[in-house]
Amino acid sequence: MFISFEGIDGSGKSTQARRLAQTLAARATEVVLTREPGGSEGAEEIRRLLVEGRGERWSPETELLLFTAARRDHVERLIRPARARGAWVITDRFADSTRVYQGLVRADLRQLVEELHRLTIGIEPDLTFIIDIDPEVSLTRGQARGGPEDRFETFGLTFQKKLREGFLTLAAEAPERIRVIDGSGSEDEVATRVLAALT
Amino acid sequence: MFISFEGIDGSGKSTQARRLAQTLAARATEVVLTREPGGSEGAEEIRRLLVEGRGERWSPETELLLFTAARRDHVERLIRPARARGAWVITDRFADSTRVYQGLVRADLRQLVEELHRLTIGIEPDLTFIIDIDPEVSLTRGQARGGPEDRFETFGLTFQKKLREGFLTLAAEAPERIRVIDGSGSEDEVATRVLAALT
Ligand SMILES: Nc1ncnc2c1ncn2[C@@H]1O[C@H](COP(=O)(O)OP(=O)(O)OP(=O)(O)O)[C@@H](O)[C@H]1O
Ligand SMILES: Nc1ncnc2c1ncn2[C@@H]1O[C@H](COP(=O)(O)OP(=O)(O)OP(=O)(O)O)[C@@H](O)[C@H]1O
Ligand SMILES: [Mg+2]
Ligand SMILES: [Mg+2]
Repeated sequence: MFISFEGIDGSGKSTQARRLAQTLAARATEVVLTREPGGSEGAEEIRRLLVEGRGERWSPETELLLFTAARRDHVERLIRPARARGAWVITDRFADSTRVYQGLVRADLRQLVEELHRLTIGIEPDLTFIIDIDPEVSLTRGQARGGPEDRFETFGLTFQKKLREGFLTLAAEAPERIRVIDGSGSEDEVATRVLAALT
Repeated sequence: MFISFEGIDGSGKSTQARRLAQTLAARATEVVLTREPGGSEGAEEIRRLLVEGRGERWSPETELLLFTAARRDHVERLIRPARARGAWVITDRFADSTRVYQGLVRADLRQLVEELHRLTIGIEPDLTFIIDIDPEVSLTRGQARGGPEDRFETFGLTFQKKLREGFLTLAAEAPERIRVIDGSGSEDEVATRVLAALT
């Protein structure tokens, strides 16, 4: 199984991806926990170009090409080999993040996102969990953190609300693949919801 | 005018691009001399990912996406603005290098090269000079140099011969844009041929 976690900034993706990986690992399956952008050696180097530096450093199109290059490397070098040997792969973000973020940056990019995906990535997760949460809650949680990788967290509440809508629209378009998980409440509560949706 | 210089490794592209820029600058036009991969700040950073490190660091597809990202940045940040203010732009390599190199690495990539170009680059030079030379000559010239950016020069004579054929095939496909310049003889002789072809 190839599973992705998606959702707005600070919704609890990393927390829940890690918890699911731990739960599955205890059942003696090989579990590969990874993230995007990054996840493989080359993709992590591309990630550095994406997350560091000024917000206007790359145009939306260049940024999209860099995300796609990183994803291609991640899929080829880590995800495909892991699946081929029967491992579970759990990724903290995948192509849906690109669809929603880039599509919000400029609506006319959605088409380019899909064409690049079709031409160079091709695969989708078997299952995607969107951790859905009120942006006011996630922004509060996020303020507890910090660091140099803050480009995507400086957009504010209005942007986060649009992101949330974008993820929910995507979920409605691909109901067979995407499960929306209520991200409110404690970590334990959310983890229980994820496991229930998985089984 | 937007002019590109193309050709196999060590054919004299950089030498002739520089000489043409000098000649045109003496006629008091604004001339922008640039190169690929690179040419703009962001593209030069992507260039470092491409030219440094082991040869198998990137798969052909990831490499192509990185070249395309660099070219998009170069076009948006340097080439388009320069053309908009009426400058001449002379670039040492452009999209034809990708067509020929990537197409040689794996013939089935040629289609992807064209689709990515159409989706994200779009423009072609007004005029392209292919500096055509016997690979045995260019390899000899190249051995006088050295440095860390040697990934593309370690392929040997057979590869260079195929590159040469690739460039000549491209020239035959786009005769209205591409001029093949005999690259043998002295720098002065080649420069004279370039100027003659320009006027
Ligand atoms: N259910 C929860 N209740 C309270 N706090 C939580 C909960 N889940 C996660 N957190 C905390 O909220 C913050 C954001 O969580 P996490 O890093 O998992 O989110 P994320 O979606 O991965 O964020 P980002 O988009 O920035 O990567 C962290 O400080 C985390 O410890
Ligand atoms: N007409 C010429 N006769 C002799 N030597 C030349 C001539 N033109 C260039 N050279 C020398 O040959 C070498 C390669 O030339 P140049 O760097 O211009 O080629 P290039 O096509 O840009 O190579 P690369 O593909 O490696 O960038 C240099 O050392 C240069 O000084
Ligand atoms: Mg996270
Ligand atoms: Mg050169």
